[in-house]
Parts: sequence; structure tokens; C-alpha cells
Amino acid sequence: MSRPVVLINLQSPHSFWRLSTENERFLRATFPDVEFRTATEKDVPQQVAEAHVYFGWRFEPSWLVDAVHLKWIASPAAGTDHLPVAEAQSAGAALTRSYGFHGRPMVEHAMGMVLGFSRGLFTSQRVQRNRSWWKDDLAEEFFDLAGSTMTIVGCGSVGVHLARVARAFGMDVIGVRRTPPAASGERITWIHTSAVHQAVAVADVVVDLLPATRATAGFFDRDLFTACKPGALFLNLGRATTVDQTALLAALDSGHLRGAALDVFDPKPLPTRHALRLHPRVLLTPKSSTLCRTYMDEAVAFFADNLRRYLAGQPLDGLAHMTALPS
Amino acid sequence: MSRPVVLINLQSPHSFWRLSTENERFLRATFPDVEFRTATEKDVPQQVAEAHVYFGWRFEPSWLVDAVHLKWIASPAAGTDHLPVAEAQSAGAALTRSYGFHGRPMVEHAMGMVLGFSRGLFTSQRVQRNRSWWKDDLAEEFFDLAGSTMTIVGCGSVGVHLARVARAFGMDVIGVRRTPPAASGERITWIHTSAVHQAVAVADVVVDLLPATRATAGFFDRDLFTACKPGALFLNLGRATTVDQTALLAALDSGHLRGAALDVFDPKPLPTRHALRLHPRVLLTPKSSTLCRTYMDEAVAFFADNLRRYLAGQPLDGLAHMTALPS
Repeated sequence: MSRPVVLINLQSPHSFWRLSTENERFLRATFPDVEFRTATEKDVPQQVAEAHVYFGWRFEPSWLVDAVHLKWIASPAAGTDHLPVAEAQSAGAALTRSYGFHGRPMVEHAMGMVLGFSRGLFTSQRVQRNRSWWKDDLAEEFFDLAGSTMTIVGCGSVGVHLARVARAFGMDVIGVRRTPPAASGERITWIHTSAVHQAVAVADVVVDLLPATRATAGFFDRDLFTACKPGALFLNLGRATTVDQTALLAALDSGHLRGAALDVFDPKPLPTRHALRLHPRVLLTPKSSTLCRTYMDEAVAFFADNLRRYLAGQPLDGLAHMTALPS
Repeated sequence: MSRPVVLINLQSPHSFWRLSTENERFLRATFPDVEFRTATEKDVPQQVAEAHVYFGWRFEPSWLVDAVHLKWIASPAAGTDHLPVAEAQSAGAALTRSYGFHGRPMVEHAMGMVLGFSRGLFTSQRVQRNRSWWKDDLAEEFFDLAGSTMTIVGCGSVGVHLARVARAFGMDVIGVRRTPPAASGERITWIHTSAVHQAVAVADVVVDLLPATRATAGFFDRDLFTACKPGALFLNLGRATTVDQTALLAALDSGHLRGAALDVFDPKPLPTRHALRLHPRVLLTPKSSTLCRTYMDEAVAFFADNLRRYLAGQPLDGLAHMTALPS
């Protein structure tokens, strides 16, 4: 068997999204029998012809044409909707996403969004320049996390991590998924997706962590927002396609929802005068919930575990499926 | 012995700061041998003459003149700097503050302030209306809570509670106090107040929870801010008098501090054009860190415990001392 070739295309203006010298040294030292080659974006089409494995943020479907030896495309990203899942499958190449380490920054992000609303911090920032005193306003609008309920829709590994921290604040947590576990040590009340309307009806905070699939397109529609408890806060750290933004705006404008914090929206970026940008009870973040200084270190560790499996002929972890659904 | 008279003056426009019918019923049912009288502010001077115990937010020194039977002034507040501690002591009346239940809302508030900065949420709110995309800016400014260090100065019961939640986010915690415990189950590194400069030098987040005493006046001065780690975030949820605001502004303007979040400041409110109000890296909240929907329920429970002690002739909990220092 010839020496396996791994082609790495991991570049970024930000250090935590690119392969560091230490990451590269670690891979070479850990896998002396593997040939690691690093490529820039423009060199990939040529170099991919000799690669058995590709590790990178992006993969153009056209690159598959010459990739006659390619067996596996590994992405450091959590989502696969920007990757040619179907094309890779047709070409006989596995495609894996990464998971297990996005939870931590996303949990920090989500809790910051929740607390920014619950403690009146976003209101404070908005008025601190021109209002003399606004304690009475905050006394009306604040809510206690302790004793309140968070419902996490699409509650996979990130959701379980979020639930753990929400519990540390004394929140009750409901996890909604298609395949609720029989039991759990996380003190999550599990509810099947078919009962999501009941699950959001009792939630002070609703967190959307659904992946982008055909089944989740427009999942949060007018009916589901109407089913939410009056005064609920809505967060989306999943995918923009899961939310009907017109319905969301209507629920905000009617006062039914307290507010919304969105890390994803459509289009990206939103037009400058878009109603979601201008809404006083909407916080937008630029898909920044997974920003994490140790991102590449953790993605490389995940890749190394998978590379061990690949070399041993074992099934890969994080395989993307064309019809992936929240599970 | 005549039936003890408890005079209650607990009014507020906000339900969670006033005595509810349920609170009153609970006290009467729990202490059938005590006579509870409720008064409005203007009736206190007259009614206090017959009271043995007073339970209220405020107490005017002048009320002591006619309060010939008064043995104990109980406040539902955590701090006593707005109360006549010295005058009560001279008149032979005990004065107690309340504690043990302010931690929870203050912890939510403090963590919201930290995460608002660490995840770039305050930046996002500021620019979401007029910047097309700002992920690169956030990629520069964000920091991970996991693995970072929080130093809590004046780390009493609230600080220990904050430490526990900060630990849930993977932060390392240093507690600074005049009387560090010999050991602790909270995984806090304890440092004596005399070494506070070293404690802030390693902190990504510095939290001021000092009480207002003669010893803490201007505690955070130019020297102490200079000793902070470059890029540190400063929070004050304690008392305004503990901070030299001119020194704080200088540390912000030089870029030495990443930002500041202040729940207390002097004067209160700040003048409309005050530099702290206008500073893009300062968040002000209107002394709202203890807002809590269950406040009065918990304050009444604390008072009831103390009233039991009073009736049994035992020492009261939460006694204020004229020269109280962070302990």
C-alpha cells in the first residue's frame, strides 16, 4: 500500500482558524507513515489529484473531477450545508464534519444573549447616554433565570452542554429532538419533536439549535411562534433556514415575543435597512457563536482521532448524511 | 413581658420590593405572639414610639428620638451605608442587614456583563444597524471564558456564589479578602488583600464586590488599575466609593483596560454628558444587579429566622458594624 497522502487547506486571516506550525508538527509526529501536504486554495485543484484525504474548510464540487484517489473529505466545521455532501457521496468519498468542541463557545454566546436580555443589559447600553435613570424600566422588564424554563429545539450535543450551564443558573431545561433519549443524567426533560408546540408554550427562553435540512426549513413558522409563551425570548444559533423571519418579526412587533437574539439570518449579511437590524428588541451577531481561540487545536485533535480510524479501516466519526435530521 | 411590636415599612412601586399579603400572612401565622403593624413612610415617626422591632428599607436618624422601646432595626437590603448605623448603636438598638440571597441575581448580572464583552454582544448591538458585517472585528476582540481567570476582590458570600458559576464556564477564580479561609471546596485560589496587586495582574476579569467602608474608599486607584493585566475587563457591583473614577477612565482611554461594566458609580445618576456614560467600552446599569422577582420572599424568610433569634434572646444575624471591612 502506498503512503497515504493528506492534503490540508486550512487558511484564515485569524490564527485560531488556520493550521498552526504546532498543529502541523503534531500531525506529522503522530502519523509518521502519512504524507501531509499543505495547499493554498488555488493549488487545491491540482494537488487533490494525488490526495487520499482532504482536510479543509471548503471543498468545491469541481475538485472531485480530478480527485481519483480521494476517499475522505474532513471539515473542521460543525455544519455541512456549505459542502458538496451529495456529490462526494456519488464520487464514493466520505465527508465528515467536526463536533464535540463547538458547544463551549456556543454556550457562552447563548448564555450571554439570554443574560443580556434578562438583566436589561442591552436596554442599559441603548439608553445609558440619554436617560438619566432607568431602574424602574429594568424592574419591569428583567426576569430571573433561576426558576425559569429554557426549551432547546434540536437538542444534540451542543444543546446538552447548554442545558448543563443553564442548570447551573437554576433554570429548568426541556430538550426537543426527534430521538429523545430514554433517560439522561443531565436533568433535561426530553420531548419529542412532534410535541414541540407544548414544549415552547412553557418556555421563558426558546433556543433554536436545529441543523439545516429539508425537514427543518421554516420550522419556526407563525404557528410555532404563536405557540410560544407570551414574553418569551427567542434565540437562533442554529441555521437561518429554520426560521420564517417574517413570522418572527410579526411575533416581535405584536409584543408576543420579548425579544430575539440571532447569530444566523437570511440573507447574510442582512440589507442595511432590514427590519431585524433596526428592531430595538433584536440582537444580531455575525455568526460569531463558535468563535473560540482554541478552535483549530480542537479541530485537529478531532481530525487526528478520525485519521486513526481511517488508517485502521474503522468507521469514521461525524459522517455527513444527505438527509441529516436533528437527532 | 408585653407583646413585642414589630413595625413594618416596606413599600415600593415594584411588587418584589414590597411586603405582599402572603408575606404578611406568613409572618402573623409564624409568630402568633408578635404584634405586626404596617406603616407608610409618613406614619413611621409616630408609630415607631411603640415598636420594639422595625423592618424597613429606610430609617431616618430622627426617628430614633421617640423610639424609646426600639431594640432592633432590620433592613432587607444588603448594604448598610444608607442606614444610621452609628446613631442606632448609640441609641442601643441593633441594626441588621440581609444577606445570602443577593448572590443569585448579582451572579446573573455579573456573568451577563462578562459575556456581553467576551462574546462581542455589546459591540454587536452598537454596530448592527450600520455595519454590513463585523465578524472580523469580533474575531479580534472576543475571548474565551474557559481557561481565563476571574479575580473577585471582596470575595464574601456573593463572591463565592459568583465563583461557583464562573467555574461552570471553565474559568479559574481567585478570591481576594482580608480573611482568606484556610481551605475551600469551591476551588477558589484565596489571596490576602495585601497581595491584591498580584491577584489582578493575572486576571482577565476583575470583579469589585467590596463594601463601602473607610478602608475601601478609592481602593481601585491608579496603581491598582495599572497593576491589572493589559486587556482586562473591570466590573463593579459593589460600591461606587471603592473606585477612583478618574483613574478608571484613564485606564480605559489608554487601552490598558478592555472595558468596564459598572452597576454603581458616583454621583448617582451620573451627569448626562459624563465620560463614563459616553465611553464606547463602558456599560452602565442603574444599580440593578440585585433585581430579583423573589426578593421580598427571601428577605422576609431571612427576617423571620432573625426574629426567632430575637425572641429567643439569641445573637442576631447580619449585624452591622460601624467599621465593617471586607471579610
